[in-house]
Amino acid sequence: MIAVDWGTSSFRAYRLDESGAVREQRSAAAGLLACRGGFEAVLAQQLAGWDDAGVVMAGMIGSRGGWLEVPYLACPAGAPEIAAGMREVVAPSLSGRRVWIVPGLAHQPAAAPPEVMRGEETQVLGLLGDLAGTGPHWLCLPGTHGKWVCVEDGRIVSLRTAMTGELYALLRRHSLLAALMPASGGPDDADGDDPAAFERGVAASKAPGGLAHQLFGVRSQGLLGTLAAEQAPSYLSGLLIGHELRGLLPAGTRSVQLIGGADLVRRYALALALLGVAATPHGEALGARGLHLLARLRGIAA
Amino acid sequence: MIAVDWGTSSFRAYRLDESGAVREQRSAAAGLLACRGGFEAVLAQQLAGWDDAGVVMAGMIGSRGGWLEVPYLACPAGAPEIAAGMREVVAPSLSGRRVWIVPGLAHQPAAAPPEVMRGEETQVLGLLGDLAGTGPHWLCLPGTHGKWVCVEDGRIVSLRTAMTGELYALLRRHSLLAALMPASGGPDDADGDDPAAFERGVAASKAPGGLAHQLFGVRSQGLLGTLAAEQAPSYLSGLLIGHELRGLLPAGTRSVQLIGGADLVRRYALALALLGVAATPHGEALGARGLHLLARLRGIAA
Repeated sequence: MIAVDWGTSSFRAYRLDESGAVREQRSAAAGLLACRGGFEAVLAQQLAGWDDAGVVMAGMIGSRGGWLEVPYLACPAGAPEIAAGMREVVAPSLSGRRVWIVPGLAHQPAAAPPEVMRGEETQVLGLLGDLAGTGPHWLCLPGTHGKWVCVEDGRIVSLRTAMTGELYALLRRHSLLAALMPASGGPDDADGDDPAAFERGVAASKAPGGLAHQLFGVRSQGLLGTLAAEQAPSYLSGLLIGHELRGLLPAGTRSVQLIGGADLVRRYALALALLGVAATPHGEALGARGLHLLARLRGIAA
Repeated sequence: MIAVDWGTSSFRAYRLDESGAVREQRSAAAGLLACRGGFEAVLAQQLAGWDDAGVVMAGMIGSRGGWLEVPYLACPAGAPEIAAGMREVVAPSLSGRRVWIVPGLAHQPAAAPPEVMRGEETQVLGLLGDLAGTGPHWLCLPGTHGKWVCVEDGRIVSLRTAMTGELYALLRRHSLLAALMPASGGPDDADGDDPAAFERGVAASKAPGGLAHQLFGVRSQGLLGTLAAEQAPSYLSGLLIGHELRGLLPAGTRSVQLIGGADLVRRYALALALLGVAATPHGEALGARGLHLLARLRGIAA
């Protein structure tokens, strides 16, 4: 079968064998925004040469601006509920293939705005088999809009989002703080790599006053010469990640499962360690594993 | 005398009579960034036709990137200390005039980054005569980098900064949240003017999880149709201002002096009222009054 993670800005496809192992993979800058609605043609092109009949897709491709809007599924939900919520799209030009889209999840906390995710749920499903005991297990998926997911008894019971990655990018590139930092290397640069400055930022997130207040410390320490320009990106990263952890990590949590790219996972693990919390790192390839699980439940894969 | 507020992006001059009342005023897009170091020539041009001998200036003109770096003065500081910290600049082409720059203030809270301000201190000084009793009095000066100032016994004893205005501008124009809002009218647009949505935002700032988490509520409620595009800017404004107030308003505070432009002061007063705090509004012209006080203390004005 073929597993696809199709988001706003990127397209990733994995060709899986019968055990769910990744045999080949492809990626392209063919996110939703680049497709202009021609999803079927883009998919046909991206999968050329792979003759597998079953295609299961997750991510924003199932949103209102995607190929087919697949309604959010309410938490709690486990693999059986998510598999049951999958929808098949009509793709006549993909002769002989059957193409499915996985639903995203929604969660309504008490007295707070609703939470939603699309795509991350497959990474969570990919990890389910590795979680010992009924939980609760806390999973953190850092990113532009990072997710905190709680799993109990094999089901996703709640989720929370933090816009930490987006705030970092905005402040790093467009804010008055950016004037006190070296020029940014672009959207994917990992420039926050001074561990001592990062630790200072995590520590600073403990001070009272809220994030909008704490952020000014980047500027004042820069003006007064106690934070060098090269240290400022790492300090900012530590401050934002520290703020996220102090806001969303439930009291008493001793360990967190971290799922994401190597650089982000490393930073979050360091920040968690500073707060006395152990982290177990996992790569993003879990998503393909989760899609394989869903495909098996629907009889699309063996 | 002439009072000048000279910041990074704007220049404002006030011609004052002997009582300190504003007789004439001028403003220009001649901030530091537009001057390219030619401060003396810009000042001569802006003051043409005003023959007053004494010129007292405040704002970023006294910073490292300004005309003359005037060292920050440590809190606590009152009008006498600030007057004593004023520095005269050499301006031979401004024949017969004497030109002074007011120092900014610095404050070092316990276990937190330092705080600095340049320019706002003159507005605070302009209000001192109106404050009844020894205090403590809490003054809030909202803006791009808004300030919270505590005055006791006629002296500024502490200050705190919140980057609320800058965060609003970044999120309103450059973030993924902006895609869920009407097009922005530009840097000065006051588009957050739906009081009910603003109140919802202030209420949402009470939820746990921190600002990076709360901000996602703008997106999730937009996706799920419970927050209309036209409501989103006001909701965002209320969320950010509510976050600032909850972070920086000292527990038990019953009243706050608000100094700033009419639109911002109105919004902050509404948010404060929702938290049960009374607000007394003041306009930005207080700065000229503060500069007149300093000029009198130095014998520059009568």
